[in-house]
Amino acid sequence: MTAIPRSGPAAPLRPTPLRPLRLDEVELSPESQLGRWQQLNRSATIPHCVTNLESSGVLDNFRRLLGESDKPFTGFWFADSDLGKTLEAVGWETGRSGDPSWKSFLDTAADLMERAQADDGYLDSYVQGTPDAVRWDNLKWSHEMYVAGHLIQAAVAVHRGSGDDRLLAIARRVADLLVATFGEGARDLYDGHPEVETALVELYRETGHEPYLQLAKRQIDLRGQGLLGEDRFGPQYFQDHAPVRETTEAIGHSVRHLYLAAGATDVAVETGDTELLEVMKKLWHSAFATKVYVTGAHGSRHRDEAYGDPYELPPDRAYAETCASIAAFQWGWRMLLATGDAQYAEEMERALYNAIAASTSQSGTEFFYSNPLQLRTGHDGSTEDSPDQRLSWYACACCPPNLARLVASLQAYVATTSEAGVQLQLLTAGAVRTTAPDGSPVELRVSGGYPWDGELGIEVSGGTAPWELAVRIPAWASEVQVAVDGTPVEEAVGSDSYLRITRDWSAGARVSLVLPMQVRAIAPHPRVDAVRGCLALARGPVVYCLEQADHDAVVEDIRLVPGELPQPRDVDGPDVVLTGSGVAVAPEVDELYVPGAAPRTTSPQPVDITAIPYYRWANRGPNAMRVWIPTTEKAV
Amino acid sequence: MTAIPRSGPAAPLRPTPLRPLRLDEVELSPESQLGRWQQLNRSATIPHCVTNLESSGVLDNFRRLLGESDKPFTGFWFADSDLGKTLEAVGWETGRSGDPSWKSFLDTAADLMERAQADDGYLDSYVQGTPDAVRWDNLKWSHEMYVAGHLIQAAVAVHRGSGDDRLLAIARRVADLLVATFGEGARDLYDGHPEVETALVELYRETGHEPYLQLAKRQIDLRGQGLLGEDRFGPQYFQDHAPVRETTEAIGHSVRHLYLAAGATDVAVETGDTELLEVMKKLWHSAFATKVYVTGAHGSRHRDEAYGDPYELPPDRAYAETCASIAAFQWGWRMLLATGDAQYAEEMERALYNAIAASTSQSGTEFFYSNPLQLRTGHDGSTEDSPDQRLSWYACACCPPNLARLVASLQAYVATTSEAGVQLQLLTAGAVRTTAPDGSPVELRVSGGYPWDGELGIEVSGGTAPWELAVRIPAWASEVQVAVDGTPVEEAVGSDSYLRITRDWSAGARVSLVLPMQVRAIAPHPRVDAVRGCLALARGPVVYCLEQADHDAVVEDIRLVPGELPQPRDVDGPDVVLTGSGVAVAPEVDELYVPGAAPRTTSPQPVDITAIPYYRWANRGPNAMRVWIPTTEKAV
Repeated sequence: MTAIPRSGPAAPLRPTPLRPLRLDEVELSPESQLGRWQQLNRSATIPHCVTNLESSGVLDNFRRLLGESDKPFTGFWFADSDLGKTLEAVGWETGRSGDPSWKSFLDTAADLMERAQADDGYLDSYVQGTPDAVRWDNLKWSHEMYVAGHLIQAAVAVHRGSGDDRLLAIARRVADLLVATFGEGARDLYDGHPEVETALVELYRETGHEPYLQLAKRQIDLRGQGLLGEDRFGPQYFQDHAPVRETTEAIGHSVRHLYLAAGATDVAVETGDTELLEVMKKLWHSAFATKVYVTGAHGSRHRDEAYGDPYELPPDRAYAETCASIAAFQWGWRMLLATGDAQYAEEMERALYNAIAASTSQSGTEFFYSNPLQLRTGHDGSTEDSPDQRLSWYACACCPPNLARLVASLQAYVATTSEAGVQLQLLTAGAVRTTAPDGSPVELRVSGGYPWDGELGIEVSGGTAPWELAVRIPAWASEVQVAVDGTPVEEAVGSDSYLRITRDWSAGARVSLVLPMQVRAIAPHPRVDAVRGCLALARGPVVYCLEQADHDAVVEDIRLVPGELPQPRDVDGPDVVLTGSGVAVAPEVDELYVPGAAPRTTSPQPVDITAIPYYRWANRGPNAMRVWIPTTEKAV
Repeated sequence: MTAIPRSGPAAPLRPTPLRPLRLDEVELSPESQLGRWQQLNRSATIPHCVTNLESSGVLDNFRRLLGESDKPFTGFWFADSDLGKTLEAVGWETGRSGDPSWKSFLDTAADLMERAQADDGYLDSYVQGTPDAVRWDNLKWSHEMYVAGHLIQAAVAVHRGSGDDRLLAIARRVADLLVATFGEGARDLYDGHPEVETALVELYRETGHEPYLQLAKRQIDLRGQGLLGEDRFGPQYFQDHAPVRETTEAIGHSVRHLYLAAGATDVAVETGDTELLEVMKKLWHSAFATKVYVTGAHGSRHRDEAYGDPYELPPDRAYAETCASIAAFQWGWRMLLATGDAQYAEEMERALYNAIAASTSQSGTEFFYSNPLQLRTGHDGSTEDSPDQRLSWYACACCPPNLARLVASLQAYVATTSEAGVQLQLLTAGAVRTTAPDGSPVELRVSGGYPWDGELGIEVSGGTAPWELAVRIPAWASEVQVAVDGTPVEEAVGSDSYLRITRDWSAGARVSLVLPMQVRAIAPHPRVDAVRGCLALARGPVVYCLEQADHDAVVEDIRLVPGELPQPRDVDGPDVVLTGSGVAVAPEVDELYVPGAAPRTTSPQPVDITAIPYYRWANRGPNAMRVWIPTTEKAV
């Protein structure tokens, strides 16, 4: 097996039901929601990350190893990973746009790392620059493999994006040292923070060098034996509570869990381990059937950044770390390729338009680390832990460059191919130019204002024989109208959520779809106690919220009347805002607890309601917000 | 001013509206709820704490300073405080019962501390036993004054209890060093964990030595200037976010906030600082009007052990630390004496019978650190942070000995005196023998099964002139029947919540009270989102809960019908258990989110319901529990 040239993230070497496209085979329309975001990432977010690598001292941490800075080590001991993720973003972005403007940054970083790297390949600016620190001596906390993983992923992305192999050489020396130190017959240990597993598989994919895959597999096989030792954070925090193949529930630190799951899925795919893949399906079900937020966010607890119990999903204290949503998106992609099951793409889309999108400001330069679904009137937003506004940077700056690397590669997740044909997984305007099953070129030109408009046009062309166009229809789209060249078709959306149309497309044809874009009320599972008596509003894949800036009534006082959902108002920018009527019921007494079976409120007064897309909240100064809105109906 | 002999906790030297009684002036009936608890504390909890001081290495931490142990320092760096609190418990218990059996433990501890204490008075087994540690160098985290504070409180309690002044001498040397190091003109600094403030005031009360009071005042005056320096926990965690006199909201680490408030109240009282006392009233209102649980627990966040925003009161992730409830109880006592306002005693009683009582097992030897109001089916109880059962001891063992010291002194909080007469603050069976305003002896003999039975008898006698008997009537007691010697009286419960009867009691008389003991539904303030659509059950001061052990239906599925509250069933032991009927509605589909405005459930089926006192939960193995029970009515 040899590497796929210019592949996007996580392109398996082994055959899988679905195959990813090359980086240059998909293009997002610059007018589309995702395309605009990718442009903003290029013009604002990536430059912001690069600037902050300097101002936060990440690059100086390398310079001091070389005697070129006399500053002390700055930031967390795993700050090198900020550089890794930013370089990965630059790698994808360069590959996508061909933009050469990052060249000097890439050279600066590669030069520093090349010179700082020890002769045997070791590279970690904290351990190398701290007299008392001993290599691999505290893997529970040190993040040495985590840092290595992000460097490896950066090198792979840069290589795929531009062919530049300077970073790849550095990363291979790091990986070779890992293999020598922790490979078969060497030390039995793993990192407290999973990440290197998926990176090693990606490096294997890019280089074809099997020992990288074997080390990734070994990390998965060893993990969960308690080799990291006891700690008051408990073994779940380190994902060391049970052997991976015996786990059945998403617990502990959510980002660590999700990175580990992505890596385990990579290993399962590349080693043909169907048993391990079945374990991953169970873990997915645990998270997505009992622990995910309606925004697609993961991890309900601030304490230990952890998953909660099943159905423990508080909207106000949702930790919902940006990195967890991104990790879940990445894991979903791997599961989609490995299984061909549309549910994974469905969840990727949910996270993308809601939890992930909400983490970046409209300016592209401010970020949420935690993404709550409610901000209360009187919230103390003075700490990084739960600010009331996105912050420019964080002491632990894992999220901003993580966003940058994801968004720079966003087009890679839009479509897949299979032995039958081409699948459109994310319904975004743009162009897909790939090959039909017979190897001949095909093209899809997708137009329409999704996710705001339900009408999509797909100009399909190419292929020398009939092939199957499959369009994933989101689960919320109960009725879809489909026509080819204006004629309604017989094909219906299958129980697998794909609309499959097999034609000879060589002469070109226009597939038209109309998805229902009614405003929808969403009810929670009855065991989600924290939002009892509330509903959420959605339209298409977009979840909405109420924000204080749009209301005279205190947001906490507003109640929705279920039969009277707010409706789209005249367009205001590209996004659709909903307006309508509800009622407000203010507290009648100040007491926290009163006799009686129901709270004491004033009688309901009609009020106007405005709901904005959740991802747009907190762009107008600090104010209260809520996704789950109490209704005037029985709670059940 | 001179010390009050054998006084209980926090007896002010300056005149206050209410005066505490001496330790030996009140006796709890051994059959009463509080009396049984105090017996259990003596027979089980205190011995358990003493045993654990050895097994957890707290005493060995001192022995190693003397070359009598070669073990490394064990436990948290503030482990000395476990010894301080246990000694305080022994002090109060010895004073109460005269039990000499603690003598050898007291001698052992005093001997170790006496010999370990540095010549200049410094005593901290962690700092003294850690080569790199420098005295007072890291007061933000070191807890050196906190440890000193608990030693001082222990010494005061032992001295008040038994007259033994050996510990007092050690504590005075510690305090004298604090005065020399941090007094006026010396170093401007305070401890990251407040505690020493109230201890210094208590030592001043016991010794009459003014510099101790001045240092306490100085600590309050200095605090909040940010002198502790920056930290990623944020200044609220250390209660260093604002000068004490400028604070208006209960925020940050709840135990630190409450200990600080108790100390500031002590300073306000002893320095006659009415302005500072007004600040304390505002802080109390902030906590008790927007942030306290219906069980009387404080601190809704596990992260940073902190208060949440106003109305952020999740029942499942309630941190509700035992020490916070105890600290609030202690602060309430100080506020009660300082103001004479019954609301403080009301909250003390709420916490005592619910949050505080729940933290100890029926065996008296297992404890909750965190006291949630809901434990979910499927809860992961594998960590100390949120176990599903009380634990025998904790890595940070602050709570068990804190309970021991409180319960050993419980009788001291039952009654007060004033210029008018005697006030019964806690309605418990027992005896009060004190003096009338004219100095002549008086006696109250209280009988009845409170808190289970609403009928109380008070045999009143003594005094040479008419004096006022005041009985605090809980706010939930809407109608109270009162008679003296069988004749209904004209006196009614005042708007200040006291029933005041002035008589010539010298010939003896029997006051009879009947409090309404109907089962009550309690509704939350409408902004307490986390329990929307739910009610809590209470009877008298006791809050109830549903526990899975009593139900066939899954606890999460049970709904209360507000008009049909469960009722007391035939007595089963001393506690009253409630039984009745409700309905169960099971989830109809597995999906976490479904279209529609209401959750999908099966149709309601009648079920039997059993509610037990909240404090008794988790004594029958791990199982689901909830205080707030969804109803079949509109949520509002």
